[in-house]
Amino acid sequence: MRGVVVHAPRDLRIEEIADVQPGPGEVGVRISTGGICGSDLHYFNHGGTESIRLREPMILGHEIAGTVAAVGADVSDIAAGARVAINPSQPCGHCENCRAGLRNHCSNMRFMGSAMRFPHVQGGFREMLCVGRDQIFPVADGVSLGEAAVAEPLAVCLHAIRRAGPLDGRRVLVTGCGPIGILTIMAVRNAGAAEIVATDVHASALALAHKLGADHVLNVAEEPEGLAGLVRQGGAFHVHFEASGSASVLRGALPHLRPRGILVQLGLGGDVPLPVNLVVTREVDLRGSFRFDEEFADAVALINSRRIDVRPLLSAVFPLERALEAFELANDKSKATKVQISFDRDAE
Amino acid sequence: MRGVVVHAPRDLRIEEIADVQPGPGEVGVRISTGGICGSDLHYFNHGGTESIRLREPMILGHEIAGTVAAVGADVSDIAAGARVAINPSQPCGHCENCRAGLRNHCSNMRFMGSAMRFPHVQGGFREMLCVGRDQIFPVADGVSLGEAAVAEPLAVCLHAIRRAGPLDGRRVLVTGCGPIGILTIMAVRNAGAAEIVATDVHASALALAHKLGADHVLNVAEEPEGLAGLVRQGGAFHVHFEASGSASVLRGALPHLRPRGILVQLGLGGDVPLPVNLVVTREVDLRGSFRFDEEFADAVALINSRRIDVRPLLSAVFPLERALEAFELANDKSKATKVQISFDRDAE
Amino acid sequence: MRGVVVHAPRDLRIEEIADVQPGPGEVGVRISTGGICGSDLHYFNHGGTESIRLREPMILGHEIAGTVAAVGADVSDIAAGARVAINPSQPCGHCENCRAGLRNHCSNMRFMGSAMRFPHVQGGFREMLCVGRDQIFPVADGVSLGEAAVAEPLAVCLHAIRRAGPLDGRRVLVTGCGPIGILTIMAVRNAGAAEIVATDVHASALALAHKLGADHVLNVAEEPEGLAGLVRQGGAFHVHFEASGSASVLRGALPHLRPRGILVQLGLGGDVPLPVNLVVTREVDLRGSFRFDEEFADAVALINSRRIDVRPLLSAVFPLERALEAFELANDKSKATKVQISFDRDAE
Amino acid sequence: MRGVVVHAPRDLRIEEIADVQPGPGEVGVRISTGGICGSDLHYFNHGGTESIRLREPMILGHEIAGTVAAVGADVSDIAAGARVAINPSQPCGHCENCRAGLRNHCSNMRFMGSAMRFPHVQGGFREMLCVGRDQIFPVADGVSLGEAAVAEPLAVCLHAIRRAGPLDGRRVLVTGCGPIGILTIMAVRNAGAAEIVATDVHASALALAHKLGADHVLNVAEEPEGLAGLVRQGGAFHVHFEASGSASVLRGALPHLRPRGILVQLGLGGDVPLPVNLVVTREVDLRGSFRFDEEFADAVALINSRRIDVRPLLSAVFPLERALEAFELANDKSKATKVQISFDRDAE
Repeated sequence: MRGVVVHAPRDLRIEEIADVQPGPGEVGVRISTGGICGSDLHYFNHGGTESIRLREPMILGHEIAGTVAAVGADVSDIAAGARVAINPSQPCGHCENCRAGLRNHCSNMRFMGSAMRFPHVQGGFREMLCVGRDQIFPVADGVSLGEAAVAEPLAVCLHAIRRAGPLDGRRVLVTGCGPIGILTIMAVRNAGAAEIVATDVHASALALAHKLGADHVLNVAEEPEGLAGLVRQGGAFHVHFEASGSASVLRGALPHLRPRGILVQLGLGGDVPLPVNLVVTREVDLRGSFRFDEEFADAVALINSRRIDVRPLLSAVFPLERALEAFELANDKSKATKVQISFDRDAE
Repeated sequence: MRGVVVHAPRDLRIEEIADVQPGPGEVGVRISTGGICGSDLHYFNHGGTESIRLREPMILGHEIAGTVAAVGADVSDIAAGARVAINPSQPCGHCENCRAGLRNHCSNMRFMGSAMRFPHVQGGFREMLCVGRDQIFPVADGVSLGEAAVAEPLAVCLHAIRRAGPLDGRRVLVTGCGPIGILTIMAVRNAGAAEIVATDVHASALALAHKLGADHVLNVAEEPEGLAGLVRQGGAFHVHFEASGSASVLRGALPHLRPRGILVQLGLGGDVPLPVNLVVTREVDLRGSFRFDEEFADAVALINSRRIDVRPLLSAVFPLERALEAFELANDKSKATKVQISFDRDAE
Repeated sequence: MRGVVVHAPRDLRIEEIADVQPGPGEVGVRISTGGICGSDLHYFNHGGTESIRLREPMILGHEIAGTVAAVGADVSDIAAGARVAINPSQPCGHCENCRAGLRNHCSNMRFMGSAMRFPHVQGGFREMLCVGRDQIFPVADGVSLGEAAVAEPLAVCLHAIRRAGPLDGRRVLVTGCGPIGILTIMAVRNAGAAEIVATDVHASALALAHKLGADHVLNVAEEPEGLAGLVRQGGAFHVHFEASGSASVLRGALPHLRPRGILVQLGLGGDVPLPVNLVVTREVDLRGSFRFDEEFADAVALINSRRIDVRPLLSAVFPLERALEAFELANDKSKATKVQISFDRDAE
Repeated sequence: MRGVVVHAPRDLRIEEIADVQPGPGEVGVRISTGGICGSDLHYFNHGGTESIRLREPMILGHEIAGTVAAVGADVSDIAAGARVAINPSQPCGHCENCRAGLRNHCSNMRFMGSAMRFPHVQGGFREMLCVGRDQIFPVADGVSLGEAAVAEPLAVCLHAIRRAGPLDGRRVLVTGCGPIGILTIMAVRNAGAAEIVATDVHASALALAHKLGADHVLNVAEEPEGLAGLVRQGGAFHVHFEASGSASVLRGALPHLRPRGILVQLGLGGDVPLPVNLVVTREVDLRGSFRFDEEFADAVALINSRRIDVRPLLSAVFPLERALEAFELANDKSKATKVQISFDRDAE
């Protein structure tokens, strides 16, 4: 079968890889759709981030959904043909962090398509994949596998809003309207926020944000001081989700958090010069948010019920042969939100 | 009467100031002791901090205790002669923040000896002071007014540990062993922490930290990498109280917090380059802590019962005439922890 | 002017009462609509509850909205003609509870139409009423004053869901589908719950519950063991809002809460025999919820935006002359959800 | 070897039982001391509680400590001769509750000496026991194995105070001064409570409570209304730990909780008639507390450091031959707090 393998920065290949068979407790899934994530782009563009570097060829991808093709010996509660979303996260369940309920910080975490460990954990951009029975979640009739493949980034956003605490009745700021920002807006709306303000530098992203739940949108490239006006009207923010990864965006928003406001940092980034005086005198709560755990099941349920309808996010789908084009389009934030690859033979 | 008035950086004068009489609901207190705080030193050395500048002469001081000399017309439950600690904080009770339970963020806060408002709120380094009845708290027999004057900085530390949540059984790091760091250590010990590690650059401060509750002390000037070893032995920290105001100390400690660890920032400071990757992947909670509210009463109770015995902190007391000497000594972190001024006539 | 005055159980009179003029800081409001609440019915039917008894004639009512008719001397930011919802709650802002952020537990609370204090605090079922400026909240164009009068019971429900903590992704049970139960369902839906099960004994109430947000409804009179089946399908509940006031309902639902599940008790009632073994071995959290504070503003905002559309709750409106009929209908849970009285002259 | 086996109510036998050898990952421990717990007494006196009944002979005991005698094949980090406390709790780590961080609610829990499952999980009152490597915790030099055997009930109390949230500066009521009540008092003191009031009906228990940390003690048999006076003096309670299992004690204390006060229920019991009006209007938080998880390690650390010194609790130790006498003494709350059995051959 074929897979999408990154060898080095800008060296992405569609290669023949070894076939697999599900072992006991496992399920073989024929992958249908895979979404390209920011970390996939990091590997593609730069060979990783500052601290996590590619050290061997790695199959990319961890936003995936497909159809069960075969089940292992002792799997009896799901059958071939079932359409499923796949949770790419496998905490060990036994380490100190898992025992303390911090499963997304598992010391022995196996997360698909991540170079954190060596050998790297190979990803899901491939025609067939074997995973544990508890990693698959049925997709509702009428919901596409493309939608189901959004469960993973949505789970990231649901985890972020759990980190923030209750949102009903709160005024919320979301900075950065890429896929994570947009899904955060939808999740915040679903959680009952009173008002959502979204900022970005691309008009198309802001238009989508407005359509999918933001009450006010602001192009900070055009109106760098625009937040102040919105805050004068509606009041300071209770919660700020930072998904732009931009130090200046974070700093610019900080004065608009109300006292004891919560700033949830979602995106990775380098150093941010944090104004300690403001953090102290306003008693800001800055909380990092990383991946997810049980929120994956919640994400599938929200997509299945369409309480969160992710279809407007799906900018484009490319067949496997054109995976490189897909990555190039995903790189252009002014043109695309979520770009996906189809692994279906008949899609080609 | 006389007061300690700052006119400009390094221009501190002992001046004659106008006499006062308690109005209705007020109490006149003959001040006995006043402790010099970090913010007093900021005004003395630099005329304030970056954002809060001295714009007119101001009486310094907000760590004060004394003896009731006179009571206003409608005050009946306390009498002349009562020895009291004074809460320098007066939230309005009516603004949006007060109504939301964020009284330390009162929009109309009157805090003694602070240049945040203009005209500035005059401070308590003076022979006589009138305050509201609810600003005074009786001091137990056998407890000195010097000890009572420590209620204010202790309240700051109690507020910081409230910001951190439960501490019993937790491993705690305190960086910076000035008065706030030391009092934090004592409050953390009182709250049942399993283990306390303290760091500073002065041997004398560390010796005091060790004596008053730290299980391990570390001179980061001598052993910049020492934390790693302590963490290997005892495990990463659940909570870090940052009271050094040093960006490099904060950054150096961050990798030693466990996932979802809590970093409470106490001291003011400039910009700190925050490593966002670490904050996100470890899901660090960084929480500013500012002043206090109901914790003042708790602080007085702890000093009255000597469950927290602050006497070892009191490095030196100077009579009012030698207030300048007191400020100079307080400036030298290698020699003094808490320096106080006595306003008692017979102390001179 | 006229008001609705209860003198004794079943002795409700429409009486001429003294006219009022707004004092400084006050606003005179011509009342348009008043909703009948469970506590109004308690006074009407029984002269109060077990512990709170009517001791003098009292004007009923605290779910009210109207039009500003006159403003006091120093009120400048609202003018005659403004349509407003009225917050019937007036905490003092100064007592120990208010200072501790527990304003709904104010020791000197003045709550309209309540016999908790003596002399009783007279209520709002009257043609004209004077209240503090901060007790009125503008109603949006196109939203009726009948809808606005629902802000009070909605605030009660918003407070209850704050007591429960985050609800997004949770499975929630609501027992009792009177006005409070129904509004709770709407507020829980708005806060992002994954699944809502509602129970009652009246088919009409359950039909409304289903229409307004419950995923599953259950008539416990017909299927006393029906919860067990729903739990087998969908899993145990994270949160249970008890609004039926029935001991057997509470006990029947307790085994269906998951470990550390939260039971929020909304309705008043007598003794409930609580099975301590279950509370302990499941580590149940049982939390009382009483009235509201800042949630009143949130309720008005939700009604103004129609994110919560309360129109389907409004069963019937009676002119003031027929107030007694309104109370009789409100007593019949099989026929009415929220019954209101109109004080508009032209409604008669 | 010999063990203490309950066959039926009042039918306790010292019997010869099969020898055991540690398997892979296990450790064989020669038991030195076992403490008698309330649940052991339930089996001994009544054959269990209302819902959990003895269905086959069962070795009692889960408060145990001993010396490592042999280690399984792949255990290398502990050696024969090590003195250890034993955690009797074995959650599976994989069920829904374990994955959600609710390990003390594990669906497949194996807890020593409990008839919850069938076949029952045999207990630790025996001369030799094999347990998992991660169930043993080294005991510090100079600390006796009798003290170490108190780690289990202390863990129960540490879990209860975690359920309560932060205790520093809080006024706390503990009702019931048996072993759990006394250890709770010590743990609450260690966690920085401002004031602790303890109640019981036995003078000896109250004397011990006072000695070990209660500021005020009250014999509710002699002064049934005494709490009201203490509350008038010191204020209502923030937190109440109920360890008496008495419905009238719980009801009597409820009016003395402040608004939003927390009532942690520790002991098992039958139905308690709960006054719902009070729970609602005071917004009481009633929280069940059951067993423990990671708190076992914390308990051993506190005993090892003697920050909690449990020696004054140890009322009596009986050799294995006199186990029946030990149970009879443990039944008499007026004479004993914690009664233990020694399994050391040389203790006989």
